[in-house]
Amino acid sequence: MSKILAVGTLAFDELITPFGQSGRILGGSASYISIAAKKITGDVGIVSVIGYDFPDHYLQKFIDRQIDISGVEKLEHEKTFYWKGKYHNDLNRRDTLVTEVNALAHFNPVVPQHYKDAEFLMLGNLHPAIQQSVIDQMTRRPKLIALDTMNFWMDTAWDDLMTVLKNIDILIINDEEARQLSKDYSLVRAAKTIQKMGPKYVIIKKGEHGALLFHGKNIFFAPALPLEDVFDPTGAGDTFAGGFIGRLAKMNDIGFEAMKNAVICGSNLASFTVEKFGTERLENLTEVDIKKRLKDFINLTQFDIELA
Amino acid sequence: MSKILAVGTLAFDELITPFGQSGRILGGSASYISIAAKKITGDVGIVSVIGYDFPDHYLQKFIDRQIDISGVEKLEHEKTFYWKGKYHNDLNRRDTLVTEVNALAHFNPVVPQHYKDAEFLMLGNLHPAIQQSVIDQMTRRPKLIALDTMNFWMDTAWDDLMTVLKNIDILIINDEEARQLSKDYSLVRAAKTIQKMGPKYVIIKKGEHGALLFHGKNIFFAPALPLEDVFDPTGAGDTFAGGFIGRLAKMNDIGFEAMKNAVICGSNLASFTVEKFGTERLENLTEVDIKKRLKDFINLTQFDIELA
Repeated sequence: MSKILAVGTLAFDELITPFGQSGRILGGSASYISIAAKKITGDVGIVSVIGYDFPDHYLQKFIDRQIDISGVEKLEHEKTFYWKGKYHNDLNRRDTLVTEVNALAHFNPVVPQHYKDAEFLMLGNLHPAIQQSVIDQMTRRPKLIALDTMNFWMDTAWDDLMTVLKNIDILIINDEEARQLSKDYSLVRAAKTIQKMGPKYVIIKKGEHGALLFHGKNIFFAPALPLEDVFDPTGAGDTFAGGFIGRLAKMNDIGFEAMKNAVICGSNLASFTVEKFGTERLENLTEVDIKKRLKDFINLTQFDIELA
Repeated sequence: MSKILAVGTLAFDELITPFGQSGRILGGSASYISIAAKKITGDVGIVSVIGYDFPDHYLQKFIDRQIDISGVEKLEHEKTFYWKGKYHNDLNRRDTLVTEVNALAHFNPVVPQHYKDAEFLMLGNLHPAIQQSVIDQMTRRPKLIALDTMNFWMDTAWDDLMTVLKNIDILIINDEEARQLSKDYSLVRAAKTIQKMGPKYVIIKKGEHGALLFHGKNIFFAPALPLEDVFDPTGAGDTFAGGFIGRLAKMNDIGFEAMKNAVICGSNLASFTVEKFGTERLENLTEVDIKKRLKDFINLTQFDIELA
């Protein structure tokens, strides 16, 4: 069984959508990535940081799911990272109302000994120098290193970002970020430019418009499942990443055909996350739910046409 | 061989894109629909109207392709419909600079005797009462009636639109139009609402984000082919419609599985139209080009995952 190490945030989120307010709930990239990955495969550990106010019953969610939290550091004099945001009516745009970095400002990730040989490393959105420091701690080169980033690091830590990009296999970002990183509007050309920066694989997430996987001349596309209502898009991208890497680890295969299925798996799980606030829907997901939705994805996309 | 009757505009278009200016070129829904459909199947006729200034060498394009133009009326005292538009840098939005309705204001479509029994009727975007007048001229109910419309008719001819919608099988519109027609942001719910207005099938085109086909509880999605450059999006939607109905007519099958392949066929042809100004790329398309691109669509979307 391949080990997955997920590095990212554990946080408080507070979300306002056209459908209601979440209050203060569990958020953070490490939450979504690890819970999603664990739905698919067996050995998942987190490296993250929390403050004194992070409730035990949130940690218990991970423990109950046999997600290894020995790499989660608790800072006794800091509060936990907190983000409050409000979505516009179409849910495609959101405004940040409050960001309190808190404990995250002091995050100095230490990879537990038993995860230094993890085969699959998922680096959630963090300062690229911090992401690099995790890679440097691995005692052997993981089979696959995936990384998420955001516009903020392109604006403030470009050189560090360029350094870490050279050391990863797959970059998972959204369309706006791909455009800023490549300075190109065309996503096809953006992916080519990004591949030259290091990662041989690039996934560009387009939110409700699906996700594109690029590798050399190969392109694969998975739509988002068309839903009657998207309730809360928060965490969909991290859920995608978790389902994606979970599937690769489960199959222990990083070829392009395996990646296609991993993209479908990520899209599958993400389609659940958006149905409720936060991690709620993801937490309660069963294998039967996932299988059933996989059939929906197959019906949605597969066709049988004669080529002759 | 099933007959296709395409009713729509023959026009002059003048396009300004970030890549250049087209000058005055052949445009209009009937142009794209008929040329696209004719690439796929055998018997295609147009009903349209032109002015005295419509050049013979444009008509010759249709004659050369064995597209029947006996239903094209020439008004000796009117000019041809003319549209000039400018695309924004991202090509997703455009501004109309000039619209001269000209001959189109006097369009009173007369279906030639030998197309009154057409099995496939494609009603391009026109006043819904004019679309209805074509249906009324058919001597037998076509196997499939498809219709395109736009926001303008929802604003100005709602009752006529509701009447014609009751008499068609499939509505082919874009996402904005679907939202306005249904008064619902969610495309899944919009499609349900529209089905209650009449058409059992609904196709919602999302431009570069692909197209969704709805029928009862079934949904099928075809992406647009990711291209390095979209040169000119004009006519992509009409090309899609032409390829779609051409495929259905060729297979003489209007079941959901056949419609899936027709959506792929429409997306395939549309991916060529956007590569050059106007109908240029579509006109010169070969069967080999289409087959090759079909392989691209298969590679882009098809995967093989275990359901057990």
